[in-house]
Amino acid sequence: MKAAIVGGGVIGGGWAARFLLNGWDVAIADPDPEAERKIGEVLANARRSLPALYDRALPHEGRLSFHADMAEAVSDADWVQESVPERLDLKHAVLGKLSDLAPKPAVIGSSTSGFKPSELNEKGARAIVAHPFNPVYLLPLVELVGDAALTGPAAEILRGIGMFPLTVRQEIDAHIADRLLEAVWRESLWLVRDEIATTVEIDEAIRMGFGIRWAQMGLFETYRIAGGEAGMAHFLAQFGPALAWPWTKLMDVPDLDDALVAKIAAQSDAQSGHMSIRQLERLRDDNVISLLRALKRNGSGAGGVIRDHEAALPGQHGAWTRPIPPDWADGGGNVAGFRFVEAAEAATARLLAAVAPADLPVTDMRLRLLRPLTAAGSLTIRSSLATRGAAPRVTHRIEAGDGAPVAVVTLFLAPPDPDLAARLETLAAAQEEDLLAGDDDVI
Amino acid sequence: MKAAIVGGGVIGGGWAARFLLNGWDVAIADPDPEAERKIGEVLANARRSLPALYDRALPHEGRLSFHADMAEAVSDADWVQESVPERLDLKHAVLGKLSDLAPKPAVIGSSTSGFKPSELNEKGARAIVAHPFNPVYLLPLVELVGDAALTGPAAEILRGIGMFPLTVRQEIDAHIADRLLEAVWRESLWLVRDEIATTVEIDEAIRMGFGIRWAQMGLFETYRIAGGEAGMAHFLAQFGPALAWPWTKLMDVPDLDDALVAKIAAQSDAQSGHMSIRQLERLRDDNVISLLRALKRNGSGAGGVIRDHEAALPGQHGAWTRPIPPDWADGGGNVAGFRFVEAAEAATARLLAAVAPADLPVTDMRLRLLRPLTAAGSLTIRSSLATRGAAPRVTHRIEAGDGAPVAVVTLFLAPPDPDLAARLETLAAAQEEDLLAGDDDVI
Repeated sequence: MKAAIVGGGVIGGGWAARFLLNGWDVAIADPDPEAERKIGEVLANARRSLPALYDRALPHEGRLSFHADMAEAVSDADWVQESVPERLDLKHAVLGKLSDLAPKPAVIGSSTSGFKPSELNEKGARAIVAHPFNPVYLLPLVELVGDAALTGPAAEILRGIGMFPLTVRQEIDAHIADRLLEAVWRESLWLVRDEIATTVEIDEAIRMGFGIRWAQMGLFETYRIAGGEAGMAHFLAQFGPALAWPWTKLMDVPDLDDALVAKIAAQSDAQSGHMSIRQLERLRDDNVISLLRALKRNGSGAGGVIRDHEAALPGQHGAWTRPIPPDWADGGGNVAGFRFVEAAEAATARLLAAVAPADLPVTDMRLRLLRPLTAAGSLTIRSSLATRGAAPRVTHRIEAGDGAPVAVVTLFLAPPDPDLAARLETLAAAQEEDLLAGDDDVI
Repeated sequence: MKAAIVGGGVIGGGWAARFLLNGWDVAIADPDPEAERKIGEVLANARRSLPALYDRALPHEGRLSFHADMAEAVSDADWVQESVPERLDLKHAVLGKLSDLAPKPAVIGSSTSGFKPSELNEKGARAIVAHPFNPVYLLPLVELVGDAALTGPAAEILRGIGMFPLTVRQEIDAHIADRLLEAVWRESLWLVRDEIATTVEIDEAIRMGFGIRWAQMGLFETYRIAGGEAGMAHFLAQFGPALAWPWTKLMDVPDLDDALVAKIAAQSDAQSGHMSIRQLERLRDDNVISLLRALKRNGSGAGGVIRDHEAALPGQHGAWTRPIPPDWADGGGNVAGFRFVEAAEAATARLLAAVAPADLPVTDMRLRLLRPLTAAGSLTIRSSLATRGAAPRVTHRIEAGDGAPVAVVTLFLAPPDPDLAARLETLAAAQEEDLLAGDDDVI
């Protein structure tokens, strides 16, 4: 599959990374001589981040190419994504050209934050809105707006690359999420302008409170809980009156004049200026990875999307190569010992899945740490089952990305009943070579 | 220390839990005959949730009492928190009484979502706004508004119970966070009313995208990153024009009539009606615990608050009793094997902190699983250092809350240099009794 990315900024780069790391070939069309460098920076962030959401390897990366010629970039493309600046005349020009050049079955998506498909297509283009959220390589949401005959297949493709298509059933300025963001943005600009709060104080008011709620449930489910057993209608009756109170400055729009721009820029510098954008991106990505992996455990919200995508990834036979998430690091940046045990427990379940229940009791474990492993990139686990001796045992040899052995974990299983013992025997016999090679690692 | 909680709903109950689980005595004043049951339900949620944020035990719970008589409840109180329904006349009556009854140095806080201190106190009360966020036992944010002579000491107390006081420097209707929430709420009501989106679609638009960003950075820092190296002023210039576009319905307020209430209630039932409020609360709390523990690792946002609070908790000598977070569970609800190793690694660092660097190399580990342990409540780790034999080793005996042994983890350290060896000898000698008792657990 091939994606053509038109416009290579942060959003275009994020799209490129999403497709590329899911095995698509990606052709970038951008006249900017800096495009290759800019895309390269986004890709570097994505390569260390997106795989870390999963406990399986993503497909092999596709081929990345850069093109000055738009026609060349879009030839044979299955998805064409436009991410040029938010000016309707520019969108018209680019989307018109893409509609002529792209293969007929290709999806033509626009990353527009605010324009409606009817506006984008008023000069004859055949685009849909496919509006993602930064960082595109980590956040699953894509708002799809447009002809259902086009958004349906587009949604399928997006699910295939681990994203969450939200089909907006009726076109409207700014779709859904940006309407909510814009409301908060305007209110926040007032608060800064009127000297009520600084940018730091507003950010704290969000991330110390409702931001945490919203990472896992949204607005309505959160309020449903707040309403309690009495139900949603009761909640609405209780809080409805506030709608008539002066709780927002909604009735008016602040003038974003030079003074307000300067004030916000200065407050933002004071808040975050001690970190470069690159450092902030890394911190954000590490946080988002950890948050998404936390949600993945329960399958809630975006965590459910990752779970489903992971289940659909191609399985591996034999050795298991898996990414090392950044939160596997100990204080020194190496993989913490207990994470090898975590990996080995998962590998045991994987090895025995065909013959044994998932909760097969383990009585003992042995971990040998051969050398430190930096918590980045991937590791490979080679697992073997031995049934000779007192108790069946599964040995996992763990290797760094370069093949160097870093750890050996052995799990000793509780004595099985005769039926399970026979099934374990059969499995062990089927991998006798592994068994012989591995025996000396087991004590 | 003693807190008096006036009004025993979800918010009052959350306050009660926060204080109680941080070792305060708590007196509840609520005429509702159901108050004890309601508070009990919030407390049950809090007892399984709040301790799980920490890797140390919280102080022993204080005493909880219920009072029909407000004077009795507030006597000797250091903090009095009013959480009665959001009606100004009612707030006047209750806060006036509390100002007469409460000891003079006590903080009198109101949980009001919207009223200003000048409004609360216009009949002579001496209250400040102390506005928390549901679930109060997990989310750290409290907005403090009022006389700086009162909010300063109040902020200190809140930090002591692990909360994040955000002092709002200038009073304004709905303080800061609820102004942002109200903006999103109004916009969402329009989207539902106008058939643009359902409650599910709005919730997905939040939690699949910007909700995840907001759990760890707020609005401005997120946009600073989006703006890239060009800086915040550039970002503002780029997105400023949207302020003039019809991206929100801000200019108008929807009529929350019966039809709209019924529509929202029906959509909410379809979205979440398959789960009881209790189940939703559990899911939310488990998610929030996991999110907060994920942030704690990096010290970002609310995770930093938990880190700081944990560091200030009283240390334990000898055995280490610690909560079991819900995300330590394996698929069957028991503590996963690798979590015992995680606990043992932390206990090793704790035991050796005084004599050895944190990254002292470990060469081998041995884990014996004696019996399954349900992933709830707490466990106790008894650690001992042995220096006889080939390599120094630390043995951790792990016990369930009832004292039953559940696992033994032994870590073998790399051979130390003579200087470190001597320091380890000294430490080992100091705990010889542990050593002798534990020797047979090490193989």
